[in-house]
This record gives sequence, structure tokens and C-alpha cells, in this order.
Amino acid sequence: MIVGRVVGTVVCTQKDHRMEGTRLMVVQPVSIADQASEGKPLVAVDTVGSGIGELVMVCSGSSARQTSRTVNTPTDASIMGIVDNIELLGSLVYRKQDEK
Amino acid sequence: MIVGRVVGTVVCTQKDHRMEGTRLMVVQPVSIADQASEGKPLVAVDTVGSGIGELVMVCSGSSARQTSRTVNTPTDASIMGIVDNIELLGSLVYRKQDEK
Amino acid sequence: MIVGRVVGTVVCTQKDHRMEGTRLMVVQPVSIADQASEGKPLVAVDTVGSGIGELVMVCSGSSARQTSRTVNTPTDASIMGIVDNIELLGSLVYRKQDEK
Amino acid sequence: MIVGRVVGTVVCTQKDHRMEGTRLMVVQPVSIADQASEGKPLVAVDTVGSGIGELVMVCSGSSARQTSRTVNTPTDASIMGIVDNIELLGSLVYRKQDEK
Amino acid sequence: MIVGRVVGTVVCTQKDHRMEGTRLMVVQPVSIADQASEGKPLVAVDTVGSGIGELVMVCSGSSARQTSRTVNTPTDASIMGIVDNIELLGSLVYRKQDEK
Repeated sequence: MIVGRVVGTVVCTQKDHRMEGTRLMVVQPVSIADQASEGKPLVAVDTVGSGIGELVMVCSGSSARQTSRTVNTPTDASIMGIVDNIELLGSLVYRKQDEK
Repeated sequence: MIVGRVVGTVVCTQKDHRMEGTRLMVVQPVSIADQASEGKPLVAVDTVGSGIGELVMVCSGSSARQTSRTVNTPTDASIMGIVDNIELLGSLVYRKQDEK
Repeated sequence: MIVGRVVGTVVCTQKDHRMEGTRLMVVQPVSIADQASEGKPLVAVDTVGSGIGELVMVCSGSSARQTSRTVNTPTDASIMGIVDNIELLGSLVYRKQDEK
Repeated sequence: MIVGRVVGTVVCTQKDHRMEGTRLMVVQPVSIADQASEGKPLVAVDTVGSGIGELVMVCSGSSARQTSRTVNTPTDASIMGIVDNIELLGSLVYRKQDEK
Repeated sequence: MIVGRVVGTVVCTQKDHRMEGTRLMVVQPVSIADQASEGKPLVAVDTVGSGIGELVMVCSGSSARQTSRTVNTPTDASIMGIVDNIELLGSLVYRKQDEK
């Protein structure tokens, strides 16, 4: 899984009917160590009620369909968790409650 | 999923019989922020009636088979939505009705 | 899917028994626009009777097993179509009958 | 599979319910030859009781769900082994008992 | 599939129980044209009795589980063939019997 920040949304009215009711979020991958942007943004289905600005975990490939919301949908990336803390070698490098 | 623009078509008369009746589109991946071309084009099966010039969502891997048209076919990329709007950090960066 | 040119063959006498009878082709990926070589060659199972020099479509991942020949085999790339025409933005950039 | 070193943990209280009880580890990929860091860290589910500092094997994609702990979960990377020895061309290049 | 050379082994005593009895080989990917090393080594499960120094075919992703030995295991790369010959554009560029 990768860690990223939710930075936007995509709206498609014409889409495969299995995708109806899903929210498509733009996620900017970030460095795990300092949460700086890294690489290109991608589009993922939200499955946990994430919002703009939140740090999330994104799962890719067939595993992206292993959530109640995405089973049997043409989804290759899903937000499957909202990050609370990241600890690296004993140091807390991210704490959600410190944001904003 | 990635965002791309439909730029062409590929015709194969000799192909796996499960692919009969599918339309193969050439899709140029674009930057989500400004929709400029980015990276190499790929070939995807159209599942939503997309046309040349349209901005679309492309789903890859086994998930590309999760549409009524592509189930059980040797398809590793499907167009599963036509993009109407993209919003980044509160700004509308793409609106389909502004095109052309 | 990607577009490539068949440039060779690989023979393995000792292999998983499910692969018996399959033809392993070396495929050189090409640019869709001008069919020049691009990137590294890979090995794919032929499922459509392709030959050396032909332009083909290659499907990767689990989708490569979705043909009559490759179902349940350890195959991660299959040739699933022989390209006849490629059209980009209204121009015919490849026509099989012009080859040779 | 790739070889990496466990360097941290990620905590998500809000996550897909199928992920409850799983431990999310940050894994830094390493060179197989000398175990130096190489490339970007990723997040993987621990399935073998690994700890910070240990050298592990990470399996990606749908195969990451083929463990008792990760079946049917939105997991695209799993730690499925703790490395004891690595031998390259007859030389032992890593021995767990030599660590620390 | 890619072509590589078996260059080592990895031993994990603590691993997912489904992996018991499997042999983990280090495989160095090679150029198909001249079999020179190319890119980073990876770890693959041996399913054909390959040995150090042999040129092999490696299959990745879910397809790596499509062998008698790897079905239902957390394996994302399998050695599924030992290469005897490679022919490129009519020239034999590799012949196993010429090795050693």
C-alpha cells in the first residue's frame, strides 16, 4: 500500500453502472518519512469517508476490489484507511491530531 | 485509475474470439492538474461509448475485466468513465462543457 | 494493452506441464504513433497464430490467462490480436497491408 | 518477491473493517547483494510476526492476499517470510544470526 | 514473462505455512538479446528444478500461482521454464548446450 493525501475529486456521469454511487478521489502520493508530495497523483475510490487534505492508505490492483464498496467494480485503486500515526525507527513522523 | 484522452483506435481482425465486438481505443494519459499529455499512450477497451478527444478514466489490471463488456476477455485496460469535472483543492481544473 | 512487434521465439523443454504446446514469442514493444522500437522486449504466449515481423497487441497480468490457450497457465503476457490498422486523430498511422 | 527491512508502523483507526486486527508495517526495500536501502518504502501487512529491523520477504499484488491473515482483505503487499540467509553465487551475503 | 539467470537462494525458516517446502531463488533479469544482466534481481519460487547459473523464464503476478507448486501460496514470481534456445530475427542468440 502507499500513503497519499486526498487533494481532489473527479466526477463522471457516464460510467460503468457498477461504479454508480462511488466517490472518485484524486490522491497525491507522499513520502512516508515527511509526507511531502512525491510522484504523480492518481484516482482512487473512497471506501472510508475520507476528505480533502486527509492522509490515507491506498491499495492497488485486484486488492482494491476487496472492500464492501468496490467488490465487482472496475476499480484498480481504493482508499482503505485514514492514517492516524506513522512511526519510523522509534520516532513519530506523523500524527493526525497535529494537522491543521 | 488514471485520466487520459482518447486519441485513436486500433483494429485487429485476427484476435481472441472473446474480444469480438470490442472497440480498442488509443488513450494518451494526461496530467490530472492541467490535462497535458504525460507518458506513453496505451490501448484500452471502450465500455462507455467514448469518442476521440474525450477525457476518460482508465482502469488497469484484472479490474479492467469488471465491466459487462469485458468480463472473461483478455483485457488489461478499460475505459470505465467519461470525465465531466475535476476539482483540485477547491478549484475546478477541468469542466467537460468548456471543451471545444 | 500494448502494441509490439514479434521478433523471436524462446524454447523451453523443461517447463510447467500446463505450458506444454504453447508458443513463447519475443515481442519488442513499439511506439503506437510510428511503430519504432521502444523499451525492452518481453516474452508472451501466442494465442492467435502470429509470426515473426507482425505487429500485435499484448495483454498482461491475470488478463493474459483469459484466452482458450492460456487459461490456468502460468502466463503473464499473451498476444491476443494481430494489428491491421492504427488511426490517430484521424490519420492512419499503420496499415498491415502496406508492410513488406 | 522483494527483500526489505521493517522500519516502521502505520496506524489507521478508520479503515475497511476487513483490515481490523492487521498490523501495517513500513518496509524499506533493500539490495539483495548487500542489504543497503534501495528505492522507496512501502506499507505491507505483517503475517509472520516480524519486528522493526528485521529483513523480510514482501509479496505484492493479489498474491498478498494468499495468507491466512490477509484473505479477502484490501491488501496489496504482505510480509510473508523473515529472511535467515541469502546466498549469491556460492557466497553467504546475509546471515540473520550475524545481525545486531 | 521475463528471462533471467538464477544467481542465488534465500532461506526463510519463519514464513507463511503455505510456503513450506518451496525453494526461493534469486533471479537476475537479463537482456534477451545477449543475456547480460539488466535491472535488479528478484526472488522467485522455483517450480521446475532450476539450478544456479541456469537461464530461466519468470512469470509474475497472479499468474505466478498457476503451477502445481504455487497454487494458493503468497507467491508473486515463479520460475516456470528453463530456457533451451532463444532465436531473434532468424539468429540463434542463446543455446543452453553451449553454456559451461
